[in-house]
Amino acid sequence: MKRIYFDNASTTPLYKEVKELMCDVMENEYGNPSSIHAHGRKARSIIENARKTVAHILNASLGEIFFTGTASEANNMVLKMSVLSLGVTRIITSPTEHPCVLNTCSYLKTYHNTLIEFLRVDHLGNIDITHLSSLLSTNHEGKTLVSIMHGNNEIGTMINLDSISDICAKNNAFFHCDTVQTIGKYPIDLSKTRVSFLSASAHKFHGPKGVGFVYINNDNHIIPFINGGAQERNMRAGTENVSGIAGMAKALEMCYSNMEDNRHYIVEIRNYIKKSLTEKFRDITFNGNQENNFLVHVLNVSFPESPKADLLVPNLDMAGISCSSASACSSGVEADSHVLQAIGHDVARKAVRFSFSSFNTMDEADQLIAALEKFTPLR
Amino acid sequence: MKRIYFDNASTTPLYKEVKELMCDVMENEYGNPSSIHAHGRKARSIIENARKTVAHILNASLGEIFFTGTASEANNMVLKMSVLSLGVTRIITSPTEHPCVLNTCSYLKTYHNTLIEFLRVDHLGNIDITHLSSLLSTNHEGKTLVSIMHGNNEIGTMINLDSISDICAKNNAFFHCDTVQTIGKYPIDLSKTRVSFLSASAHKFHGPKGVGFVYINNDNHIIPFINGGAQERNMRAGTENVSGIAGMAKALEMCYSNMEDNRHYIVEIRNYIKKSLTEKFRDITFNGNQENNFLVHVLNVSFPESPKADLLVPNLDMAGISCSSASACSSGVEADSHVLQAIGHDVARKAVRFSFSSFNTMDEADQLIAALEKFTPLR
Repeated sequence: MKRIYFDNASTTPLYKEVKELMCDVMENEYGNPSSIHAHGRKARSIIENARKTVAHILNASLGEIFFTGTASEANNMVLKMSVLSLGVTRIITSPTEHPCVLNTCSYLKTYHNTLIEFLRVDHLGNIDITHLSSLLSTNHEGKTLVSIMHGNNEIGTMINLDSISDICAKNNAFFHCDTVQTIGKYPIDLSKTRVSFLSASAHKFHGPKGVGFVYINNDNHIIPFINGGAQERNMRAGTENVSGIAGMAKALEMCYSNMEDNRHYIVEIRNYIKKSLTEKFRDITFNGNQENNFLVHVLNVSFPESPKADLLVPNLDMAGISCSSASACSSGVEADSHVLQAIGHDVARKAVRFSFSSFNTMDEADQLIAALEKFTPLR
Repeated sequence: MKRIYFDNASTTPLYKEVKELMCDVMENEYGNPSSIHAHGRKARSIIENARKTVAHILNASLGEIFFTGTASEANNMVLKMSVLSLGVTRIITSPTEHPCVLNTCSYLKTYHNTLIEFLRVDHLGNIDITHLSSLLSTNHEGKTLVSIMHGNNEIGTMINLDSISDICAKNNAFFHCDTVQTIGKYPIDLSKTRVSFLSASAHKFHGPKGVGFVYINNDNHIIPFINGGAQERNMRAGTENVSGIAGMAKALEMCYSNMEDNRHYIVEIRNYIKKSLTEKFRDITFNGNQENNFLVHVLNVSFPESPKADLLVPNLDMAGISCSSASACSSGVEADSHVLQAIGHDVARKAVRFSFSSFNTMDEADQLIAALEKFTPLR
């Protein structure tokens, strides 16, 4: 039986066309983009065409897009190098950010004495905008960087990108947005939205693992995170992942050409599962925003305490369905994730994240509901 | 006409089997290795099997191998994190290192006040071992890291790995070896050779671009360079490049299974080209060690001043042959590279690097010699 993959917020299958392009590049275009001969120039043109694609889609200029190995690298680069080269002495972030932002903040606090301030979030994971304004209006020596993700990977709550970027701009704060869950799924126009830095990862939008990019607004001249050769216009040393970069641009292009349709397709699967869960099972609740401003591909479900609740994810796995536990298990003690803790999720309940892509089908949704009948109490 | 690729020190074509494996992994094993479900576990097992392969080949333990995006990242990680977490206050290196070591040293000098000391090198690029011993025996507060590459990428001069590692060990200095040009080409046994850190890049040994690894000896606990998730046992955050890691291990395995044969095959091409150049053309010299301890895949040739000398590399390129100028061109002023400058190369002469792999043939060597007849004076 074909397994069902409902963990698309974690990673996504490659588009067939992306795989084919990458295999072709790997086989035929093996030159080093830094070489000036024909082999090198062909590789260089693949990279620069990919940059054009990414920049065009985001309405950024070519010089603002830099390719990285991962979004984690991009986020480390932005936060650490802002502290080192832009005079940032304070980072305002939220307790629901990805570990690569939170752990980088901890690092900066320890090694660079950076002040880290956390925004209040409500029980749906919404950032308290008033709190942000209030923190930004307090007197602070040095520059401030605000780092907030566009859409939360665990519970799907999204920010209002324009309103937060406006608040940051008005208060002369840099604004970094981790858009790992939204690039390729939601339109972002960087000629209108005032973002200082933005990061993304190809494998979240049907591109390859091992490649991402960072947008660095032309006004912000940070120093490189990885020193060395002159690659990426002296901003990121290391031979470029040519096939990966080509695959990322292709995947982004494909996502954009079907963005609205994909969202509608996915929201129908999401709504269907949500409705079926509510109708069929006892005491089901949903984590994160449900009414507006949420990632349509993420559905975080809270199941009631029951003998089988703790084993929901492994049991679904054995039934052929991949989904994600939104809790971290350490030393045998089950504990809610930092995101669920931040929104006050009842630890006795079991949160499971189902996340979708256009590769999923309604039939798979039905199979999920059928499988769940064995593991959680019916109404 | 099929182009000829004599720039294998810059990057190498993929082994066919590596490409096939990677395409298969990309298509079928798209899980996130951090996911606990079946999709994730399959991806995880690919990575851990790759780690076994790499560790086994180097005679290291599994816990000493960490996958990175590039060797530049690995080198940045080792140098920067040694300063931050091992008490390193001095780095001893050579003026012929790769820019990712030299520029990282500059960064550390500027931002962490690290003392950077440069070893003397002779006109063949050999490190002055007495100088190393003498520097290490001087009184210095804090720990010292010695960073020397195994084989020079421009001129091919190799160090005696065992003797340098012994000197470092005797003087309680950490030893980092950039083995980008030697991994897969020369045997390295880390159970015998006392290296603290070692770095490598897959695309130099017929593996993919965008993936490398760092060996960190179990005794040296540095903190991560990229903060975030728990990947690579908390040492390198970011979703792993699963297909790239699989491809790297496969390529390394293939290199090792034919290492001696490949070297003999390549040395014959090298010797043939060297002999033909000497016999046929006027005033040809060779840069770097030629008698012993040199990279057989690198032949750095110094051509006499002539009207066409400066255009040798572009002219060969137009004749269908890719090779590398060992000089950097900035603002229209031709200048020798930092390596050539360090060995006192005559700037009036034109250095060209030809570098080989087992994909090259004697017929290609003949075509190179024939092409050169148009561009450099005959005897």
